[in-house]
Amino acid sequence: MPSSDIIVIGAGAIGAAVAWRCAQRGRSVTVVDPEPTRGAWRTAAGMLAPATELHYTEKPLLRLGLESLRRWPAFAAELTKESGADVGYRECGTVLAAWDSADLATLRDLHAFAASLDVESSLLTGRELRQLEPALAAGLPGGFHAPGDHQVDPRRVHEALMTACRRRGVRFVESAGALLIDRDQVRGVRVDGGVVLTSARVVVAAGAWSGRVDGVPDAMRAPVRPIKGQTLRMHLTGRTRLTRVVRGSVQGSPVYVVPRGDGSLVVGASSDEAGFDVQPRAGAVYELLRDAQALLPELSEAILDEVSTGLRPGSPDNAPIIGPADVEGLVYATGHFRNGILLTPVTADAVATLLADLTLDDVVRPFLPQRLGAAS
Amino acid sequence: MPSSDIIVIGAGAIGAAVAWRCAQRGRSVTVVDPEPTRGAWRTAAGMLAPATELHYTEKPLLRLGLESLRRWPAFAAELTKESGADVGYRECGTVLAAWDSADLATLRDLHAFAASLDVESSLLTGRELRQLEPALAAGLPGGFHAPGDHQVDPRRVHEALMTACRRRGVRFVESAGALLIDRDQVRGVRVDGGVVLTSARVVVAAGAWSGRVDGVPDAMRAPVRPIKGQTLRMHLTGRTRLTRVVRGSVQGSPVYVVPRGDGSLVVGASSDEAGFDVQPRAGAVYELLRDAQALLPELSEAILDEVSTGLRPGSPDNAPIIGPADVEGLVYATGHFRNGILLTPVTADAVATLLADLTLDDVVRPFLPQRLGAAS
Repeated sequence: MPSSDIIVIGAGAIGAAVAWRCAQRGRSVTVVDPEPTRGAWRTAAGMLAPATELHYTEKPLLRLGLESLRRWPAFAAELTKESGADVGYRECGTVLAAWDSADLATLRDLHAFAASLDVESSLLTGRELRQLEPALAAGLPGGFHAPGDHQVDPRRVHEALMTACRRRGVRFVESAGALLIDRDQVRGVRVDGGVVLTSARVVVAAGAWSGRVDGVPDAMRAPVRPIKGQTLRMHLTGRTRLTRVVRGSVQGSPVYVVPRGDGSLVVGASSDEAGFDVQPRAGAVYELLRDAQALLPELSEAILDEVSTGLRPGSPDNAPIIGPADVEGLVYATGHFRNGILLTPVTADAVATLLADLTLDDVVRPFLPQRLGAAS
Repeated sequence: MPSSDIIVIGAGAIGAAVAWRCAQRGRSVTVVDPEPTRGAWRTAAGMLAPATELHYTEKPLLRLGLESLRRWPAFAAELTKESGADVGYRECGTVLAAWDSADLATLRDLHAFAASLDVESSLLTGRELRQLEPALAAGLPGGFHAPGDHQVDPRRVHEALMTACRRRGVRFVESAGALLIDRDQVRGVRVDGGVVLTSARVVVAAGAWSGRVDGVPDAMRAPVRPIKGQTLRMHLTGRTRLTRVVRGSVQGSPVYVVPRGDGSLVVGASSDEAGFDVQPRAGAVYELLRDAQALLPELSEAILDEVSTGLRPGSPDNAPIIGPADVEGLVYATGHFRNGILLTPVTADAVATLLADLTLDDVVRPFLPQRLGAAS
C-alpha cells in the first residue's frame, strides 16, 4: 500500500499550491484528481483585487484577501524560481468605471470604506478616467482607481505549480478519490481499481466537487455548490491601449476586462447556478460581449479566441472553508468562490503550517468549517 | 504524368458536386485542394431560400435559385443513395418576421413581387406569425411565410459528396494547384512537388480563392473577393419549439435561425470584408446573439456549441460565375456568394453538361464570366 505523509484531493490551484508548500517542508505528498487539467483556474481571470471586490459585510474576508495579495509577489517569485515559468504576475492596478451617477455614489462610499481600512484608492472624474485609460468609452461619469489591485495568469500559475510539485517529488494520481476513515481517524484514500493510498492526513481541495467526495460522513461534507462562470478570451489585431484591469457595472450588470502582458484580454464573468453543467450559455456570452463593448468600444473589433466555462466552489456565506474538520486528519481548503486565485498563497501557507505545526494562522481562523454548522 | 479527363480545383461543395456529376457520366476526375476540410460550406447554414432572398434587381439569379431549389429533392435523394448518408434536406418552409411597421411594408412588397413570379408566399398578422412559430418574441407586428424555402445541412452534404465522389473513383490530391496553359489550351495542373497532372479540362471551383489560382493569366482571373461570414451553432437543453427557418431584420440588422432535424440551431450570418482573415470577430458574435435573442428569446438559455467563420466568394454583381473562360478547356464555377449551397445542384449539372456536350444550360447563361469584363 503506497503511503504518503499527506494526500491532497484536487489538483486545482489550491490543491496544487497546498501540495507544493507541504513538499517544500519535506513531506511526501500525493495529489489525487480524476482530471487535473480541469478546474476553475482554467476559466478564472486572475484578478488579485481585494479592494475592488470590497463588500462591507465581509471584513474578515477582505483582511484575508489583502494578506494574500501581500504574499503574491514573493509567492510568484518563488514559484517562478522553482518551476522556471513566468506566472504573469503584473502590478497593473485596477480601475472601476462608473456607468451612471448612481454608480458614482457607490464608488464614493467604496472610497471612504477603503480609506477606513488603509487600502489605497482614489476617485476619478470622467476626464481623469479617460486620461488613465483612453480606450474607455467616452462620457463615463467617473471612476475609482485601486493602484494595489493586480493580476496574475491562472493558467500559468497552475502549470508552474504542477511543475514545481513534480520537481519536489509530489506524486499525481489521475483518479477519483474516496476518503477512508476508521475509528475517527483518516486512514487514506481509495482510488480507481480499489488501490488504497494510505495517509493520516487528507486535504480536500476539490473545488466545486468538494462536497461530493466519497467516504466523507454526511455531517462532515463541505457545504459547497457549483456556481458556473464564463469568461471570454480575445485579442485585438492591433495592440490594446488598455493597461489596467477595468471593471464596471453596465446598467447593473457587472463586467471586467483584464489585459494580459501578451496583449490578450480576458472578459468576465457570468454567474449561474446550474449544477455541474459546464456548457457555455449563449445568453451569458451575449451579456459579457455587450457590457465589455459598452465600456471598451474597441472590443467589437477584437478576435474572439475562446469561451471558457468553469465551476466556482460557492459556500453558504461566500467565504472559503479552511481548516480541520472534526475527524482526525481531515482538512478542508475549498469554497473560495470568486477568490480562489487571490487566496491561493494564504490558503496554501495556512494549510501547510497547520499540517506541520498543528497551529492555525489567525487570518484564516474566521473560515473554519465549523462556522457553517457542517463539516463537524 | 497522371492524366484525367477533368481536373477540378477546389473540393468545396461546388467543386465536389461538379466532380461527382462528371464522374457519374463516366469521366475520370481529379480534385485538387490544399485543405478539403475547409470551405464556406463548413460555416453555411444551408438555407434553400430563393423566395426570402428575393432582390428586385436580380431576376435571373432568382430564376437560377428557383430552378436549383426544384432540383434539390432529387439531388439529395441521389446523393443519399450513392453515399449512404442523410444530407439533412428538410422541407420546413421559412418565415420572415417583421420587426416594425417599416418591415411590414417591405414584406407586402415582397409578397406582391413573389406573386408576380408565381412563387408561393403569404402575409401573416402578428397573431398568425406566433401561431405558426410560438417561440417567436411577443409583439412582432407580422410576417411573411414562404412554404417553399427549405434547408439542407451543408456539412452533411459535403461529406456525402466526398463519399459519393470516392465511390465513383474520383481522385483527391491535397495540394495547391497551378493551372498550366500552352498555346491557348489548358494542359493540366501543377501540384506540390512539381508533379504535373495532365488534363485538357480544368474547372476552377475554389470559392473565395478562385481569383488567386496560380497560372491563370491576369486578364482571365475570376473577379472574386472573400466576404467573411460568421455563424453560431447552439442547442437548447430542452427541445426548441422552432420548426421553420426564421429570418428577420432587427432594427436593420439581418439575422436568421435554422432549426436542424437533430434539435441544433444555426444562427447567422455576419458579413465583413476583411480579406482572407477567418478569425471570429467578437462584435459579429455579439450582434448575432443580440438579434437572434430579440426574435427568439429562448435562445438566451441555449448552449453555444460553436462559432464558425468562413469566406464567401463574392463577385462584382453578387451573382455566380459559371461557364467557359476564353482559353480552351478552362471553366469557372465560383462566385456563389451567399447562395453556394442552394445553387450547388444547378451549377454542378450545368458544368457537367457543358463538359460533356459543350452546351450551356439556358438558366446559367446570364452568369458567364465574360459579363464581368474579366476572365476573357
